[in-house]
Amino acid sequence: MSKSRISVIVWNEFQHERQNPAVAAIYPDGLHMAIAGALKEVPALSQGALPLEVSTATLDQPEHGLSEARLADCDVLIWWGHKAHAQVSDEIVERVQKRVLEGMGLIVLHSGHFSKIFRRLMGTNCSLKWREADEKERLWVVEPSHPIAAGLGEYFELPYEEMYGERFDIPQPDELVFLSWFEGGEVFRSGCCWQRGHGRVFYFRPGHEAYPTYYDRNVQQVLANAVQWAAPRVNIVDICPNAPALEPIAKKDVTFSKVGFVQGKGDI
Amino acid sequence: MSKSRISVIVWNEFQHERQNPAVAAIYPDGLHMAIAGALKEVPALSQGALPLEVSTATLDQPEHGLSEARLADCDVLIWWGHKAHAQVSDEIVERVQKRVLEGMGLIVLHSGHFSKIFRRLMGTNCSLKWREADEKERLWVVEPSHPIAAGLGEYFELPYEEMYGERFDIPQPDELVFLSWFEGGEVFRSGCCWQRGHGRVFYFRPGHEAYPTYYDRNVQQVLANAVQWAAPRVNIVDICPNAPALEPIAKKDVTFSKVGFVQGKGDI
Amino acid sequence: MSKSRISVIVWNEFQHERQNPAVAAIYPDGLHMAIAGALKEVPALSQGALPLEVSTATLDQPEHGLSEARLADCDVLIWWGHKAHAQVSDEIVERVQKRVLEGMGLIVLHSGHFSKIFRRLMGTNCSLKWREADEKERLWVVEPSHPIAAGLGEYFELPYEEMYGERFDIPQPDELVFLSWFEGGEVFRSGCCWQRGHGRVFYFRPGHEAYPTYYDRNVQQVLANAVQWAAPRVNIVDICPNAPALEPIAKKDVTFSKVGFVQGKGDI
Amino acid sequence: MSKSRISVIVWNEFQHERQNPAVAAIYPDGLHMAIAGALKEVPALSQGALPLEVSTATLDQPEHGLSEARLADCDVLIWWGHKAHAQVSDEIVERVQKRVLEGMGLIVLHSGHFSKIFRRLMGTNCSLKWREADEKERLWVVEPSHPIAAGLGEYFELPYEEMYGERFDIPQPDELVFLSWFEGGEVFRSGCCWQRGHGRVFYFRPGHEAYPTYYDRNVQQVLANAVQWAAPRVNIVDICPNAPALEPIAKKDVTFSKVGFVQGKGDI
Repeated sequence: MSKSRISVIVWNEFQHERQNPAVAAIYPDGLHMAIAGALKEVPALSQGALPLEVSTATLDQPEHGLSEARLADCDVLIWWGHKAHAQVSDEIVERVQKRVLEGMGLIVLHSGHFSKIFRRLMGTNCSLKWREADEKERLWVVEPSHPIAAGLGEYFELPYEEMYGERFDIPQPDELVFLSWFEGGEVFRSGCCWQRGHGRVFYFRPGHEAYPTYYDRNVQQVLANAVQWAAPRVNIVDICPNAPALEPIAKKDVTFSKVGFVQGKGDI
Repeated sequence: MSKSRISVIVWNEFQHERQNPAVAAIYPDGLHMAIAGALKEVPALSQGALPLEVSTATLDQPEHGLSEARLADCDVLIWWGHKAHAQVSDEIVERVQKRVLEGMGLIVLHSGHFSKIFRRLMGTNCSLKWREADEKERLWVVEPSHPIAAGLGEYFELPYEEMYGERFDIPQPDELVFLSWFEGGEVFRSGCCWQRGHGRVFYFRPGHEAYPTYYDRNVQQVLANAVQWAAPRVNIVDICPNAPALEPIAKKDVTFSKVGFVQGKGDI
Repeated sequence: MSKSRISVIVWNEFQHERQNPAVAAIYPDGLHMAIAGALKEVPALSQGALPLEVSTATLDQPEHGLSEARLADCDVLIWWGHKAHAQVSDEIVERVQKRVLEGMGLIVLHSGHFSKIFRRLMGTNCSLKWREADEKERLWVVEPSHPIAAGLGEYFELPYEEMYGERFDIPQPDELVFLSWFEGGEVFRSGCCWQRGHGRVFYFRPGHEAYPTYYDRNVQQVLANAVQWAAPRVNIVDICPNAPALEPIAKKDVTFSKVGFVQGKGDI
Repeated sequence: MSKSRISVIVWNEFQHERQNPAVAAIYPDGLHMAIAGALKEVPALSQGALPLEVSTATLDQPEHGLSEARLADCDVLIWWGHKAHAQVSDEIVERVQKRVLEGMGLIVLHSGHFSKIFRRLMGTNCSLKWREADEKERLWVVEPSHPIAAGLGEYFELPYEEMYGERFDIPQPDELVFLSWFEGGEVFRSGCCWQRGHGRVFYFRPGHEAYPTYYDRNVQQVLANAVQWAAPRVNIVDICPNAPALEPIAKKDVTFSKVGFVQGKGDI
């Protein structure tokens, strides 16, 4: 499955930006447009990076902008949601999950930890501690050789962020890329990778709507790298197939009862 | 959370046994009764084993036999289902998932790989290859020091089983206890452990309804051990709490705009 | 392998305490005696805890106090070393490693991250960042259901500790129990579990010799729990055996050459 | 660390081929030349593959052909050894380990499971079961989306191989790519990936010297893919640095004694 470009959809519930002037002041066109813009400008620094084709989708579009056709062509879906998780239809969630299991990449941002799609893929409740207090976050790079960390230093800081603290109720990540330190005293597994089905899932903690996090160059670098990492390497629909034997199976002539085997005259 | 006994519910859809005389001949009272009987007779061989209180539940009971009250008191739930997965109500599935995330153990048997509860906890489609051909299965113990393998030899055999083959679509197990060899040429990850939330999940492959697998002493030993392993160590309801700061957070006086931070006169 | 008690050896290089009065003031009889004392007093809170038989060993004893006979009877070895790692003989390191692979538990404390035995078992250099600055450490419990965390709250604090910061060069832990927050701005994976061979290894970060860390009740609880968790469940000497076939192998009559197979007249 | 080519060294102990005419008939120029030849001919099928620069090294060369200079320039080292593991000097083993921890890739083949370098990186004894009986091996692809499996089918077969069976004494792989089925009744984890330090390690089971395994096209494809996967993404020398604080640390005025903290008049 050799590809020449990666098709990315940036999905956003797009509510805060239209209801809250303080958020609109930061993201006048929506968080999704800021993220999409960053992806168009910031090159991935991981090996073998492919060019991107970036588009967006929002909750209020028909099918939340995620029709079968669009998803079929999507390589990596980025998800930002917060206050409207419950409004996402279960049908679309199932559709997205199916595509991830087939090979599509999924990048879940910040408050998306509580989205239906993330909880569905994790199987856990994805609970965490949180606090809005204009506090400093420092993200430590735990796995500097990971493609998602390409081009970063030992850590980077966000001067103002919402706090998310442990315990974060997730399955142990396959790879842990970032650990956060918070001014107020907490820590958090901020960059987590999982394989689910044939697709890759990356959770990235930062991105509170009240702060200009997605204009931060390090955050943008992480997103650019993560898209490359999450790009599909296969497209496989699992069908739980009945399978013919590859080796001869000895013919047996047996019946069974509660007390066990009643051996027949077979050639066992 | 020190306990003096483990409360186990063996759940069975209980359909094959009432519809298929060949199955009824092997499990006249249902698979669940054979499993419950084994748990009462076969002692776990892992360290610190507690006595069990074993009961059963079936699909056709009110709330599938899994009322809030019964589940609240349940330490380990064993699940056998096959042809009636779709008849299990989503509400009960959610209830069971919630209890696992709080700490309850779950043991999923054989065709339960396609149950709603297992797929919900895994987040994947749990597809596999399968074949009914009266063939031999040999289960190799990959992790002899694992409590679930206590008392077993290097391998054990089941003379007749349904084949399940890779690729099994599951998240990488936290611990892999058994690998199966099949007469017809396939292999399978047959004993897999995961932590989900505060609970432990064990998938154990054998147990086709048309064979007397649950009368096999090694299989019974695995189940007895697995119940002990899966017993809860905590009972925690995650609530995604708002958390006060543990350290002083510097007062800041800032506003934000699209171009980034507009620094105020705060003491940053 | 059912046991009625766990035999523990607390090993200490025992140098700081005899050379540095400030350290001697805190640990007059050595760190090992403080740890051994705690294990005798503080009961483990994990399920099925067994009584302990605690002894100690130090670097300057013959064979560092770790003769073949003592190690053969040892269930769990606790290791504290710092400035004398190089003085530990390679022969004893190999002996300890062999016992871990057979099933013995190993608990490595603090500066033991750079000990020969820990680096040998990890295969990595176990590098980290460090700083001595009388600073506060807060250990967050990431996996509250883990036996090692039994009886602890959501976090506990040490008012004065040496700082260890990421990146910690270790293989990804099988289980991550604690994450530390440091006053000076770093984070650290402070409680890490691995299986190596048939034995369990636990690394626990706190324990700088210049602070009374091993008198802290939470630290003592962790050690008491960890000993139970690390206790052996098997005692297996791996010998890379030649193994007879369990199934018939078709007789073949072939020879090979550079160009591939030269098929004979066998019954393949 | 953007690279334009990958520098590969194929290392071989090169003994069987010069001592055993049957082996020489298959690999007249040595196993290393067959492997090197395959790498030059078979293109990797994973995304973003880079061209290779392939050279070889053997045990009897000065420094086993692995001088500091050659290793410093090496991106991926492939290792085949069997009867002469003990002849590999500890100094060279340490040198190779150091390079892996800095970021170099290492691919260990077949009987290399018992090499000093593999055991050093795993920390375990790497024991397994084995049998030479001209038997069939079928390698199942467990993770079809893994770059190392690019271009393969659901499985591939080797008509004649040495058997390796579980239990294989290794740390749980980070990723499990292949599982083998053997004619004689065993199973094996045949394609295993680990991260160690900043480098990637891949163990690939097939490759007995008495069979023409390295002329098999699927085996060659695996090797070509694995080289790309193992290529370094960073080159970092860990130095366990002392680190200045990033945040203010409260001045404390304390001394300690056996009974705990003796608080001074500091501003804690």
